[in-house]
Amino acid sequence: MSQTFYAVIPAGGAGTRLWPLSRAGHPKFLHDLTGSGRTLIQATADRLAPLVDATLVVTGTAHAEAIGAQLPGLSQDDILCEPSPRDSMAAIGLAAAVLLQRHPDEDVVLGSFAADHVIDGRAAFERAVRTAVATARRDFVVTIGIAADHPSTAFGYIEVGKAVDGGGAAREEGGARHVVAFTEKPDAETAAAYLATGSYRWNAGMFVVRATVLLEHLRRLQPALADGLTAIAADWDTDRRNETLARHWPALTRIAIDHAIAEPVAAAGGVAVVPGDFGWDDVGDWAALADLLPAAAGGVLGSAADVVVRDSAGSIVVPAAGRTVVLLGIDDAVVVDTADALLVTTREHAQRVKDVVGLLKESGRGDLT
Amino acid sequence: MSQTFYAVIPAGGAGTRLWPLSRAGHPKFLHDLTGSGRTLIQATADRLAPLVDATLVVTGTAHAEAIGAQLPGLSQDDILCEPSPRDSMAAIGLAAAVLLQRHPDEDVVLGSFAADHVIDGRAAFERAVRTAVATARRDFVVTIGIAADHPSTAFGYIEVGKAVDGGGAAREEGGARHVVAFTEKPDAETAAAYLATGSYRWNAGMFVVRATVLLEHLRRLQPALADGLTAIAADWDTDRRNETLARHWPALTRIAIDHAIAEPVAAAGGVAVVPGDFGWDDVGDWAALADLLPAAAGGVLGSAADVVVRDSAGSIVVPAAGRTVVLLGIDDAVVVDTADALLVTTREHAQRVKDVVGLLKESGRGDLT
Repeated sequence: MSQTFYAVIPAGGAGTRLWPLSRAGHPKFLHDLTGSGRTLIQATADRLAPLVDATLVVTGTAHAEAIGAQLPGLSQDDILCEPSPRDSMAAIGLAAAVLLQRHPDEDVVLGSFAADHVIDGRAAFERAVRTAVATARRDFVVTIGIAADHPSTAFGYIEVGKAVDGGGAAREEGGARHVVAFTEKPDAETAAAYLATGSYRWNAGMFVVRATVLLEHLRRLQPALADGLTAIAADWDTDRRNETLARHWPALTRIAIDHAIAEPVAAAGGVAVVPGDFGWDDVGDWAALADLLPAAAGGVLGSAADVVVRDSAGSIVVPAAGRTVVLLGIDDAVVVDTADALLVTTREHAQRVKDVVGLLKESGRGDLT
Repeated sequence: MSQTFYAVIPAGGAGTRLWPLSRAGHPKFLHDLTGSGRTLIQATADRLAPLVDATLVVTGTAHAEAIGAQLPGLSQDDILCEPSPRDSMAAIGLAAAVLLQRHPDEDVVLGSFAADHVIDGRAAFERAVRTAVATARRDFVVTIGIAADHPSTAFGYIEVGKAVDGGGAAREEGGARHVVAFTEKPDAETAAAYLATGSYRWNAGMFVVRATVLLEHLRRLQPALADGLTAIAADWDTDRRNETLARHWPALTRIAIDHAIAEPVAAAGGVAVVPGDFGWDDVGDWAALADLLPAAAGGVLGSAADVVVRDSAGSIVVPAAGRTVVLLGIDDAVVVDTADALLVTTREHAQRVKDVVGLLKESGRGDLT
């Protein structure tokens, strides 16, 4: 039985905190947010390409066309369209079930990687994924734990336990270890305490697992969801797909893979963590993005020729409307200029952009969100 | 000999500190900066209309058409076009000479009022101008001194002396008094000292004077300029205008009326000041404009429906591009959004906008200025 590895990229979520660049109709993952020349989903697929046999993207019908255009290497079969959002367990479970259906003669491992995260350090990433795949073939649900370089309150943490080989591999050797538990985003004090122990890593939401193992856990923990997904996958590549989707999809349980599988399986000792010593960020808001821009960009995401910044240390300017932007005398400013909407705020208030988007919706300007 | 009074509105100056709304091609005076529905030059002409026999505007050829469109009550003869800027003495002197040429049988008093100032209190303005005109007929050069309500460092001051009637009229009666001297813009300490004496008023650059008196002073103090203007005025309403302009205009001395006439004549006791107890501002920068906006405007100059402001006290937003502007968490912010350029700064740095405009010119983006 040939051993194969497939990437699954769930591409949902609007990235509301990155408004007005990110919109429901053109979300975060479709944007080049690092000035690399590649959008986040393109960079994600690029990064995985040398490691995988193929890549599947699971997304909403609204974004399938844009994703197909951005990832011309994918066939229509590689893009799984959800009729409506049903959270990450349904998305990844669907991919697992379809992969098993399509490749009954393979030992399929799949790895789920968010479409809108930023990663720096390709060799370290590949090393971690290969270790994760090898560990997944030992029937673990495997996650990649990111080396935490500061006590962030924006990320969840993974509490790392003993080596899965019973202590043979020291932590620094990069081997897989048991996950004791996943934690929610901590407050600052708790985050600092986590770092001090040396036993916590950031949870980047990356999961690598045998398709059969994932579906077995699902059948045990979320049987209704497993049944629905299995029925849908059976008819996916037939002319009954839409009919079966219409029957089962609306009733699928909305739950994140973290809660459906990762947490309960970790409690039972079935989750392993592989250290990821690459740079990682989920680009949660404009403040995070400002930190990710290369120093040479001078705080500008886009054409530097369009921007004049004077005495505005730590600021980020996104000139996405082709106009000249002059920023004078405001430190840590966030200025995002798009064709129909302009945001002016500071890093400190970056998290509140989400509220403004809500406000716009309520006041009848949902067209801008 | 009939006594007449003409308004002269020199309309020059780009209002660089109000960039990017104000541009060389569409300067400050052509904009409605108070949300009144009238541009600054329209409001200036409206305010003078009930007081004058006619109004002349002196401007550059680039703006003649726009001014004509904004002031349809003016004939072509009422707009004097300068081939190039030669400062305020040439502009006002030209108007005086042309008025004398056109109205040899009148006792002409002219009053010069900037095209781009904001005045609040029409009755008080009219009272002051009528007093100034009456005083000008006694051969004084008359200015209107504005009651200073705070120790501004942005304006020049007028040091007020004895009543021109030899002390008969008390200061509070609103009669004309001698000008001891004009001062430059003071530092904060000096400005506070001025206010403490009770003898200083703001210099709004308003001059009311008999045309003959003005030209006599000019002949004595700036004879070459007087000769050039007299020669030009003699041919202004003939088919030799352009020829004579071409010969004399380029050589005219560039000097402000303050330096050419007001200061030396004041030193000789020939300048009177009439108290102006109306609100006045030269709208020197965005900070000044923010103070002038009515409270009901909520810091927005333009369509309030286009603006969402949250936790940004004291801010001013100018949504002049028809886009939605969201301002979040920056106090005293200045956000000016136009079709091809965006400015983001704070009141504190409002004076420095001028430097940015210079910078844009130097870097080859003069098209935006």
